[in-house]
Amino acid sequence: MSSTAGQVISCKAAVAWEAGKPLVIEEVEVAPPQAMEVRLKILFTSLCHTDVYFWEAKGQTPMFPRIFGHEAGGIVESVGEGVTDLEPGDHVLPVFTGECKECRHCKSEESNMCDLLRINTDRGVMLNDGKSRFSVRGQPIYHFVGTSTFSEYTVVHAGCVAKINPAAPLDIVCVLSCGISTGLGATLNVAKPEKGSSVAIFGLGAVGLAAAEGARIAGASRIIGVDLNSNRFEEAKKFGVTEFVNPKDYDKPVQEVIAEMTGGGVDRSVECTGSINAMISAFECVHDGWGVAVLVGVPNKDDSFKTHPINFLNEKTLKGTFFGNYKATL
Amino acid sequence: MSSTAGQVISCKAAVAWEAGKPLVIEEVEVAPPQAMEVRLKILFTSLCHTDVYFWEAKGQTPMFPRIFGHEAGGIVESVGEGVTDLEPGDHVLPVFTGECKECRHCKSEESNMCDLLRINTDRGVMLNDGKSRFSVRGQPIYHFVGTSTFSEYTVVHAGCVAKINPAAPLDIVCVLSCGISTGLGATLNVAKPEKGSSVAIFGLGAVGLAAAEGARIAGASRIIGVDLNSNRFEEAKKFGVTEFVNPKDYDKPVQEVIAEMTGGGVDRSVECTGSINAMISAFECVHDGWGVAVLVGVPNKDDSFKTHPINFLNEKTLKGTFFGNYKATL
Repeated sequence: MSSTAGQVISCKAAVAWEAGKPLVIEEVEVAPPQAMEVRLKILFTSLCHTDVYFWEAKGQTPMFPRIFGHEAGGIVESVGEGVTDLEPGDHVLPVFTGECKECRHCKSEESNMCDLLRINTDRGVMLNDGKSRFSVRGQPIYHFVGTSTFSEYTVVHAGCVAKINPAAPLDIVCVLSCGISTGLGATLNVAKPEKGSSVAIFGLGAVGLAAAEGARIAGASRIIGVDLNSNRFEEAKKFGVTEFVNPKDYDKPVQEVIAEMTGGGVDRSVECTGSINAMISAFECVHDGWGVAVLVGVPNKDDSFKTHPINFLNEKTLKGTFFGNYKATL
Repeated sequence: MSSTAGQVISCKAAVAWEAGKPLVIEEVEVAPPQAMEVRLKILFTSLCHTDVYFWEAKGQTPMFPRIFGHEAGGIVESVGEGVTDLEPGDHVLPVFTGECKECRHCKSEESNMCDLLRINTDRGVMLNDGKSRFSVRGQPIYHFVGTSTFSEYTVVHAGCVAKINPAAPLDIVCVLSCGISTGLGATLNVAKPEKGSSVAIFGLGAVGLAAAEGARIAGASRIIGVDLNSNRFEEAKKFGVTEFVNPKDYDKPVQEVIAEMTGGGVDRSVECTGSINAMISAFECVHDGWGVAVLVGVPNKDDSFKTHPINFLNEKTLKGTFFGNYKATL
């Protein structure tokens, strides 16, 4: 039992007091975990665009003050009542989407969208009592997607904690709790390219590179990287990308360029940009008869996906994924 | 060997001389089958909306005079050079889409969209010599989708002929060569509902009823029929439909009605109307996490499928099918 168990912990955290304003390092008080909650000591956290998006709060419901952060690694400090599969000292990754183990989604082999613990960007409190575990000078500070890892200590639901091998270096594996799993899983769990097949990856940021790595692991023989920034192509080779297309280099739609390169289209595509035009291109560039496109990037609120329905009748499939379809905590 | 083999056959056919004008029963001359072709005696043929659509030729390239018809049953009269798996007397169904057995589609386990023999509504001649086998008073008459079954005799490519058990009554099984296979296959081969699952069928015409029958065979426990014509509901019960929704009875979109009936959406949906609004509803009414929607109905040329991409990220899948994904002649 840790000496801090059951006590309020004072520590440093980066607090966002207002939308778009610089985070402020504050002394925060972190309450002990309640039933089915776990308090974590966060050792490493990275910055994901989703943190920035909600910090900017353009078009999103503003919820401030708030502690952002969701891609992190840490160690269990103490556990609340009813938590039996985690104990102090466990190395863990907090994840913004979890499993209650009881709902239809958790019991489905296909879904990872738990009714209780799926991501909820509009909730800033813990489920158990509808309150925050953070406060600064007595003022409650909202949580973010149940993780709030921009704090030395945080409280998360036990169903949103993935226990990992303590030999894994936390400074490196922390990125598995968001972007890398999202990209890798999109390819391995959803697109499922066959050995020797062709795969197009739209967007060569961290998520796209992880998606390319998934295609490499699956044995794809052609991995076509698509990005508006040609500087990304060299780095992408390390993740298995074999050919590159910069849509700015062509007068015609990129889906036509890819169809010409591949004799009618790629076997699989994975869209990792969030741009609606890239989503449409990613769908239309797959081969008729068997092509599967997978959407990963988060669209804008007012986006509309548009295509001629004959593309579906020509036996192209369009899927999407959330967190690479991984059930991280089961 | 039939006594007519190698000879031109004179017989009756219903010829469409102009778009939208009544068909005329004419004495036509039907040339013998060339290499890889088969001449069939058509005993039964039914009328499909696709015949009407191309006869009306609104928005389609007009190609007249033409002999329509593609849903039929008959007997092989004679075979051309190189045809080894069919012989005179075989009971067969001509099909508007066939298999060359050599292309990537034919070799794929998933696709039935053969590069050589997939449907081509713009071709009115045979592949072998680019000419028609039909003539009336010396004037060539165009073929339709390689079948032209509104004639007592017709010539089709051997790869577009499905040999059937001669015990099967041709007057009944002729509908397998289009609508019934399309609907049944959409459910059994593409939507693949699990035992005990819920399935929504949009459109309760022949194709939709066959799709419902597929859901019944697969063991679906709730089969929700959706149609603007409530008179179709009674008949649909015979094909397994358990519940009915007429969108006209509600002020809200039918996808919301179905989501409320089913605790979030159906497990599978099959769209058999060709209406773009029904396609969108059929997609949006499936459950997040695992729902699969299958489009079957043929859209209009200028239709655009529109939905918010977040529906895909919520792990709904959209597929389409052509001829129920059956490879009828392999």
